[in-house]
Amino acid sequence: MYKCSLERMSDKIKTFSQFGDAGHGGITRYSLSPEAKMARAEFIKRMKAIGAEIEYDDLANIYATLPGTDPNAKRIIAGSHCDSVKNGGNYDGILGVMSAMEALETIADQKIPHKHPMTAYIMTNEEGSLYPPAMMVSGILCNDYLPPELAKNFKYEDMMAVPAMEEHEGSEKTFGEALEKSGYKGDKANRMSPETCLCNFEAHIEQGPILEDNDKEIGVVDCVLGMFNYSLIFTGFAAHAGTFPMNKRHDALYAASQALCYLHDEVDKLGRPELVYTTGEIYCHPCVHTVIPDRVEFSLDVRHTDPAVLQQVMDIVKEIATKKWAGCDCEIRENWKRDTVEWNKDLVSYVQEAADETGVSNQPIHSGAGHDSQFINYMIPSTMIFVQTKDGLSHCEPEYAKPEHCTDGATVLLNAMLKADERFEG
Amino acid sequence: MYKCSLERMSDKIKTFSQFGDAGHGGITRYSLSPEAKMARAEFIKRMKAIGAEIEYDDLANIYATLPGTDPNAKRIIAGSHCDSVKNGGNYDGILGVMSAMEALETIADQKIPHKHPMTAYIMTNEEGSLYPPAMMVSGILCNDYLPPELAKNFKYEDMMAVPAMEEHEGSEKTFGEALEKSGYKGDKANRMSPETCLCNFEAHIEQGPILEDNDKEIGVVDCVLGMFNYSLIFTGFAAHAGTFPMNKRHDALYAASQALCYLHDEVDKLGRPELVYTTGEIYCHPCVHTVIPDRVEFSLDVRHTDPAVLQQVMDIVKEIATKKWAGCDCEIRENWKRDTVEWNKDLVSYVQEAADETGVSNQPIHSGAGHDSQFINYMIPSTMIFVQTKDGLSHCEPEYAKPEHCTDGATVLLNAMLKADERFEG
Repeated sequence: MYKCSLERMSDKIKTFSQFGDAGHGGITRYSLSPEAKMARAEFIKRMKAIGAEIEYDDLANIYATLPGTDPNAKRIIAGSHCDSVKNGGNYDGILGVMSAMEALETIADQKIPHKHPMTAYIMTNEEGSLYPPAMMVSGILCNDYLPPELAKNFKYEDMMAVPAMEEHEGSEKTFGEALEKSGYKGDKANRMSPETCLCNFEAHIEQGPILEDNDKEIGVVDCVLGMFNYSLIFTGFAAHAGTFPMNKRHDALYAASQALCYLHDEVDKLGRPELVYTTGEIYCHPCVHTVIPDRVEFSLDVRHTDPAVLQQVMDIVKEIATKKWAGCDCEIRENWKRDTVEWNKDLVSYVQEAADETGVSNQPIHSGAGHDSQFINYMIPSTMIFVQTKDGLSHCEPEYAKPEHCTDGATVLLNAMLKADERFEG
Repeated sequence: MYKCSLERMSDKIKTFSQFGDAGHGGITRYSLSPEAKMARAEFIKRMKAIGAEIEYDDLANIYATLPGTDPNAKRIIAGSHCDSVKNGGNYDGILGVMSAMEALETIADQKIPHKHPMTAYIMTNEEGSLYPPAMMVSGILCNDYLPPELAKNFKYEDMMAVPAMEEHEGSEKTFGEALEKSGYKGDKANRMSPETCLCNFEAHIEQGPILEDNDKEIGVVDCVLGMFNYSLIFTGFAAHAGTFPMNKRHDALYAASQALCYLHDEVDKLGRPELVYTTGEIYCHPCVHTVIPDRVEFSLDVRHTDPAVLQQVMDIVKEIATKKWAGCDCEIRENWKRDTVEWNKDLVSYVQEAADETGVSNQPIHSGAGHDSQFINYMIPSTMIFVQTKDGLSHCEPEYAKPEHCTDGATVLLNAMLKADERFEG
């Protein structure tokens, strides 16, 4: 068993936290922005310092590779993304990059023997904050391997034409232009692929409170939850707040509120404590205080491991659409859905063993959030390691993980990679 | 009894509907915009044609006056505004202007004798669509007469500095600049005032379905409903939709939805069919489909003639603020409130008599909407006449009133003005 360095990991956390620091304890580091380029340069500098070979692919993904003893062996890769949401934290994404760096630095420092080449990577544009959608580049990269209903959302030509959501320093009109001007656009032949890569690991903060509540440092992730995203749209008609009698109204906001409460009542009756569902967006038209709303739409995001449970919630949503709510019609629109992605069971077992053998407290956990590795897993066997997150907060500036836990996460990653080096056959 | 001309009224409706026509059957005619200036020019052209004297005051209000036989008599004034909301209709506001024009044209045409000067006016910026708030100019004009809690919202200096809500052809940075550049800024001494004006009438579309439901052409308005406007603000905390267990959530949108339904339940228990209350606006933060909302705010507009009933609703709102909703706190904010404004009973009786004597079907009605005349009434005795509105629709392009009803409204206005000319003593 090998141990990573708290001192070196802490230095990386401190250093990377500067790239995009907006002065409130977190960062804004859009993909391919000047801030992200500083993080990329730091990654390259540190990886070159341990003798890693640096490559870029045509999507500006960066690979830093330490050769193994077998010149014909496929790579064992680990990494994540270095971009953040607006006013995000110092851990989401970059922790997976730093953990992979730390694993490779430990291998170099302690001269740990390994047969396969070991690669740390940065994946471009996971958050999709400036150029949506999220997981854009892994969606392009794995396109030939994704189920068709996922693949169609990530076609290369479509993604290159995605316009910037806002003007940001160094932002370009489209993602394609940003790639061209990034200075990191390399060769398509350098893309990670099943031909060149044996397996993939991604360390990440948990982004939830489960590990903290259970006093565990590390989560041994077994899957990414399946999910569906619907919009529920209520249509009544607008009229003047002062002149239109109550008994003649068809108020779309009252309708939406009733349906939202009904949804909670009915879904809670299913008695599934692991099910999570969220109504995060609401849009009201015309949204004027003196006008009865004629159209209100809210989003519904539902996640669970079991497709049968997702179907039960879908049935409730479909039932809602058959009813009148405060005299208003309801229609529903499916925005997308994804099946549960099960990680490779051998790789999961290596993470479990590595955590147990290095004495890092751990528990099995599902991933509720989406990650690049769930797309990569369709192409290259993958798994993930979660690190305890303070108060379950993420995608915000107070996002925090203890340096000791981050270092232990890297230690688990390193030892799991070494187990794969010895035993994984794909 | 005198009758107005259907032909002349129809011609005015058709002509004024062109100024700001956006091609969908209604108009966008912001105050002091090029479109509003076309309407103002048409008003002046037609009023000059009957020999009326034209004056502007320093707020760009226009007055067209036919002299009476008594050189010392105060003016009897009638009018409304010529501006609209965005994609509004061809009647709200301008109908009151056209009705006053029609009354003066009938006086001139039929050489109807009258003691007092008769004035038709256009009031600037009632809608406040480009330069908020609504009823801005009557608020400035009547400032010395308004209750202090109303007056403070309409201070001259503050209003001049109000910035344009959007860029529109001919829009200026502030309302003050728009006034300066309007070409209609005249003398402050020309403002309507109790020294120069005996009484004030305003004809307007009903903007509700009551007259149509009761098959009445005209509403004899007795008051403008008292109202209050509150915001209800729910605060929980944000977390990731996929990673945060349901039982630890404090979801501000679920909280707001529960409270909105509770509000309906409790207010409906009061059993007041004339009470109207509206939750027209809702704002959600951060309003991202993968994030549990941490802050949701909705507006509440409540209107009724009886302050005791308004107080009952206020008590329910205050009770809501003492409770936890889905684990979230609720705070409330009073935005404004207005007392019920009772029209001058003599003037109301003239409208009633004029309608009965001219055979125009009518009923008493309250005004649920706010109008410039409710501010003017603090300074000059006022009343209003409502004209049946198709389907109760207003502030939208399908807004419609039959030309026959509009003409009968002008007839009632004319005869009520003549009764005031004979009998009103202030």
